[in-house]
Amino acid sequence: MIRFNCDYLEGAHPRIMQALMDTNMVQTVGYGEDEYCEEAREKIKEACKCEEAEVHFLVGGTQANMTVIASILRPHQAVLCVKEGHINVHETGAIEATGHKVMAIGGKDGKLTAEQIREAHKNHWEDGAHEHITQPKLVYISNPTELGTIYSKAELEEIRKACDDCNMYLFLDGARLGYGLMSEESDFTLEDVAKNCDVFYIGGTKVGALFGEAVVITNKALQEDFRYIIKQKGGMLAKGRLLGIQFLELFKDGLYFEISAHAMRLAKLLKEGLIKAGYKFYADSPTNQLFVIVSDDKLKQLDEKYSYEYQMRYDETSSVIRFCTSWATKEENVLALLEDMK
Amino acid sequence: MIRFNCDYLEGAHPRIMQALMDTNMVQTVGYGEDEYCEEAREKIKEACKCEEAEVHFLVGGTQANMTVIASILRPHQAVLCVKEGHINVHETGAIEATGHKVMAIGGKDGKLTAEQIREAHKNHWEDGAHEHITQPKLVYISNPTELGTIYSKAELEEIRKACDDCNMYLFLDGARLGYGLMSEESDFTLEDVAKNCDVFYIGGTKVGALFGEAVVITNKALQEDFRYIIKQKGGMLAKGRLLGIQFLELFKDGLYFEISAHAMRLAKLLKEGLIKAGYKFYADSPTNQLFVIVSDDKLKQLDEKYSYEYQMRYDETSSVIRFCTSWATKEENVLALLEDMK
Amino acid sequence: MIRFNCDYLEGAHPRIMQALMDTNMVQTVGYGEDEYCEEAREKIKEACKCEEAEVHFLVGGTQANMTVIASILRPHQAVLCVKEGHINVHETGAIEATGHKVMAIGGKDGKLTAEQIREAHKNHWEDGAHEHITQPKLVYISNPTELGTIYSKAELEEIRKACDDCNMYLFLDGARLGYGLMSEESDFTLEDVAKNCDVFYIGGTKVGALFGEAVVITNKALQEDFRYIIKQKGGMLAKGRLLGIQFLELFKDGLYFEISAHAMRLAKLLKEGLIKAGYKFYADSPTNQLFVIVSDDKLKQLDEKYSYEYQMRYDETSSVIRFCTSWATKEENVLALLEDMK
Amino acid sequence: MIRFNCDYLEGAHPRIMQALMDTNMVQTVGYGEDEYCEEAREKIKEACKCEEAEVHFLVGGTQANMTVIASILRPHQAVLCVKEGHINVHETGAIEATGHKVMAIGGKDGKLTAEQIREAHKNHWEDGAHEHITQPKLVYISNPTELGTIYSKAELEEIRKACDDCNMYLFLDGARLGYGLMSEESDFTLEDVAKNCDVFYIGGTKVGALFGEAVVITNKALQEDFRYIIKQKGGMLAKGRLLGIQFLELFKDGLYFEISAHAMRLAKLLKEGLIKAGYKFYADSPTNQLFVIVSDDKLKQLDEKYSYEYQMRYDETSSVIRFCTSWATKEENVLALLEDMK
Repeated sequence: MIRFNCDYLEGAHPRIMQALMDTNMVQTVGYGEDEYCEEAREKIKEACKCEEAEVHFLVGGTQANMTVIASILRPHQAVLCVKEGHINVHETGAIEATGHKVMAIGGKDGKLTAEQIREAHKNHWEDGAHEHITQPKLVYISNPTELGTIYSKAELEEIRKACDDCNMYLFLDGARLGYGLMSEESDFTLEDVAKNCDVFYIGGTKVGALFGEAVVITNKALQEDFRYIIKQKGGMLAKGRLLGIQFLELFKDGLYFEISAHAMRLAKLLKEGLIKAGYKFYADSPTNQLFVIVSDDKLKQLDEKYSYEYQMRYDETSSVIRFCTSWATKEENVLALLEDMK
Repeated sequence: MIRFNCDYLEGAHPRIMQALMDTNMVQTVGYGEDEYCEEAREKIKEACKCEEAEVHFLVGGTQANMTVIASILRPHQAVLCVKEGHINVHETGAIEATGHKVMAIGGKDGKLTAEQIREAHKNHWEDGAHEHITQPKLVYISNPTELGTIYSKAELEEIRKACDDCNMYLFLDGARLGYGLMSEESDFTLEDVAKNCDVFYIGGTKVGALFGEAVVITNKALQEDFRYIIKQKGGMLAKGRLLGIQFLELFKDGLYFEISAHAMRLAKLLKEGLIKAGYKFYADSPTNQLFVIVSDDKLKQLDEKYSYEYQMRYDETSSVIRFCTSWATKEENVLALLEDMK
Repeated sequence: MIRFNCDYLEGAHPRIMQALMDTNMVQTVGYGEDEYCEEAREKIKEACKCEEAEVHFLVGGTQANMTVIASILRPHQAVLCVKEGHINVHETGAIEATGHKVMAIGGKDGKLTAEQIREAHKNHWEDGAHEHITQPKLVYISNPTELGTIYSKAELEEIRKACDDCNMYLFLDGARLGYGLMSEESDFTLEDVAKNCDVFYIGGTKVGALFGEAVVITNKALQEDFRYIIKQKGGMLAKGRLLGIQFLELFKDGLYFEISAHAMRLAKLLKEGLIKAGYKFYADSPTNQLFVIVSDDKLKQLDEKYSYEYQMRYDETSSVIRFCTSWATKEENVLALLEDMK
Repeated sequence: MIRFNCDYLEGAHPRIMQALMDTNMVQTVGYGEDEYCEEAREKIKEACKCEEAEVHFLVGGTQANMTVIASILRPHQAVLCVKEGHINVHETGAIEATGHKVMAIGGKDGKLTAEQIREAHKNHWEDGAHEHITQPKLVYISNPTELGTIYSKAELEEIRKACDDCNMYLFLDGARLGYGLMSEESDFTLEDVAKNCDVFYIGGTKVGALFGEAVVITNKALQEDFRYIIKQKGGMLAKGRLLGIQFLELFKDGLYFEISAHAMRLAKLLKEGLIKAGYKFYADSPTNQLFVIVSDDKLKQLDEKYSYEYQMRYDETSSVIRFCTSWATKEENVLALLEDMK
């Protein structure tokens, strides 16, 4: 079975495993206050060109999302996102469990626009009964989105401006940030992310690490007491150094970007091959998740050798499925898949 | 200023005020354990023809909704309702503040169908990743709905059946239940409500009382420890007898239904008059809330003498507004309004 | 049965009932935005000599406590109070249900001291692992306390100073504030309360109203968006004017203080009579709650004619019980009780 | 610097690291549904001799505690534990953040007794106002406790019986369970834990794993939908196999018990050496945490070479500190410490 169903199929990049082996018997203090974490935080701040940022390491994405959101909002405030937003549909109500409504609106290609933010803000404050409605205070976007699409720099900057004008915060979920930034179609950098977001996270779980997400809080007003919230939400890893060691390796000499680029190269190979073979896509993704329309007959054939993520029925005889590439994908497997997809 | 903007503009029905005056200096125990509450509970159980029900008195609707819902659901379970559902849009995230997602789906005329419930259930359990999604466990409907529409007996029974088949509970918000039941178009009774719902409430605030909602829990499995939850959510009135005295008066000799019928008669008078005058409606409500399309010029004129609730712009030159009648509406005022609406 | 078990046995002061009758058919807007509420707010701000305060009317005490506390604290922050604090033992975990720990410490006579606040603050911040512990951020005191004792002006000012020094907020639960202020032993006024607390509430339920607590937020930093939180926690009364009308009557010409003084006069009469009759007290209360030690034989005799609140066993043959006087207590009943207590 | 301050100073046991290396590039499904997790679950159920148990793998202790507790309790229900309980003092209010009060009572040597449980139950239900108080429904104990003490089999069985009689559940926090079971003074086995608890967890983080706690739910009534709660609380590891691989290694051939025994042997060596050197203990721990009273002068000397956890001041010239041994402690380091402690 060759798996293409997601981008967290294997363990970690060999260099990360080696770093964990090398440091295994070193004694350190716990809870992320060790020297590896400290060094990794410095590397990430450098990469973001944002010295005043605070960097925290969490284990997973849902944890990162709920910790960040709960940390920012007062009880009556809500987070705005697109309907497909991960926090809206795939976290078993983790945000609501911290007491906050997710205000989901229909996006375009999985993306939110500056205009939609302005409109949501206006609708709220113009409503005579606004105190009876949750107050949109935080904007949540993902890059890449759940549909694999990415924001342009102009779009990101417009969203930032809308948030400023509306007195709202901007949080970017970067579970697959590396893949987004390394897409050929992306026109911005990690530095731009840091410049435009109040808080965001750099995903490790799907980009080479065993696990781990680096939350970067650039807005000083949101930095206070964040470690308390991590602890309360169950996200403070006892052996915090495990996160530091991994992110240190990822950001020491550009490994994070290098392995992201590898996934992007193979995604492109796969996408172009599929196009050539006549396949259509449900969403036009320039990143590592490809949403392909495949006949049910073909799927039956694929099932013998490959795994993919079933998305939904497309029409009577075909379905939408997802293929993912990742830092670990082998070119030979992509070629084999393309051969079998013909 | 003659007000038609809502159905909680005045105090209480004179008989209720008199009952409060008559009992004012009587000493009773607190927290709803007095004899008035006891007697009122019995009257309501009789009216519902449901001896095994438990009846609890709460002060207001949001309180009733959040107490009932929080009492029933486990953390990962959600409540299903239509987009316009009061809990979804007009309670400042009260349900989410108790930790639960409101799963809102587009209804028809403000109503949910049995088919939609079955579909939501199927979608959830067929999803391979259902553990990553909140589990729909409770159905919330209102009768009348937020658009003034009402369910038919057949619809209610189909919803009940869908809930049974899907292992879900059914909760009916009856903030305006009297008006719904007394609508000429309604084909079911309070007894049918009790027979088909696991829990519902009979609204007093909008139907003659100073305040108060009577929560009726017919499903024995949902009765345990409900008073703890009332207390925790801030809804246990110290002088609980105030609620008992009011509901006792409302259910002693049919006052609740009588005053509801009064509101319905005037709503009909108003609706027919508006139709005669050529007005169109945004929703075809057979109850005490009328959603009328009115030109902006006409609105300016109305503003001098009447209040209404502005709903939204309809087109470039007209808007949707709401008129309400209630137990307290005077026929002369309806006639005056109709005269001025010509 | 003559009841002395609590101070919410009757309805409301006759003047309040009359005001509710007089205004019953007046039409007003809802949710506390009517003219009665507006006027009552002004009266209360005058009485507090605090023009910049915000005043909000809530229905009950638990609701007021949980709304205020949830409004102020971030998720990791806790409220400090004495073990007997109402929020710690008699609100079914209402505060915890909003996500916050109640950090309870042993007080003296039901009171917290400035020194204890400083110590709690020091203990927290000196602990190397303070991020693993809830952060004390809000001090909750009651005046009178649950044991009927009251703070002196000096004590209150010291607590204020401690809160300032520790960067903590001060919240005073005034469910029985009138009785506290009108005690002969009290050396401060409502103005002093307003001057020293960030937020407090003036209890109506136990002091002449049918129900209602007036939350006064003097600290501008805590005023933002409070109405949203009221709505979310189920405390926004549809016919808000009911609260305005009652508090307007209570604060129009000093009725609140006058009826509080009445209760205090009868409490003194009762206390002195009990002392003369040889009774001992469990706590030395200068307010309307008297905690008396009574032999079990005597209690059996009392049971035939009087109600009291049983507190706990004192020794093998006697118990602690509570008698309360209130705005509604009749002198003749106190004299009858004293006669029977001999 | 030789560290004795806690038992999570190093990475993982070499065999675990090797297993992670060996499986690193294997592709598996996520979220704990892979074959390693499946096999590990079987091994643990065998070790517990409890075929009907459900086993779930979580990353850390606070996460395990809050997930288990939130899964079991209804909103008004509380968890009972000793004052020193980890959930009460060292989890930043994680339990309260899920809405539940921690009802802490003074234990003895960090342990709760069956009698205290019965008393808490009786106190609650005998109180006429019990609906105003959180309902104790779940008992939380740790073995070893926060003071390093352990329960006897008789004590555990009595607690089980008390829980049965009081209709309460029993949850055992086994963050250091291996050390507890391998203590020479322990008279019960993992099987006894499974037999007496409704739910418990087997700690990996402090006993040889990089991270991980295996929650074992033996009571079928508590098994439903637990994976939803894990996801909601942010505890569902994407690469769940990392937990399976580790626990599989720990339970394949008794490694968990073997390395726990190693820590116990060195703890005994250290304890006996300290006794011989004349030291007194703050608590008499038979497990891997030793709470020693040390003069401040001696501490200054130690600081140059060793780390320990400072607990509190003991008297004017001495303090209580904690030394821990673990699976990773080297005998030579214990001997060096003993030499320097002389």
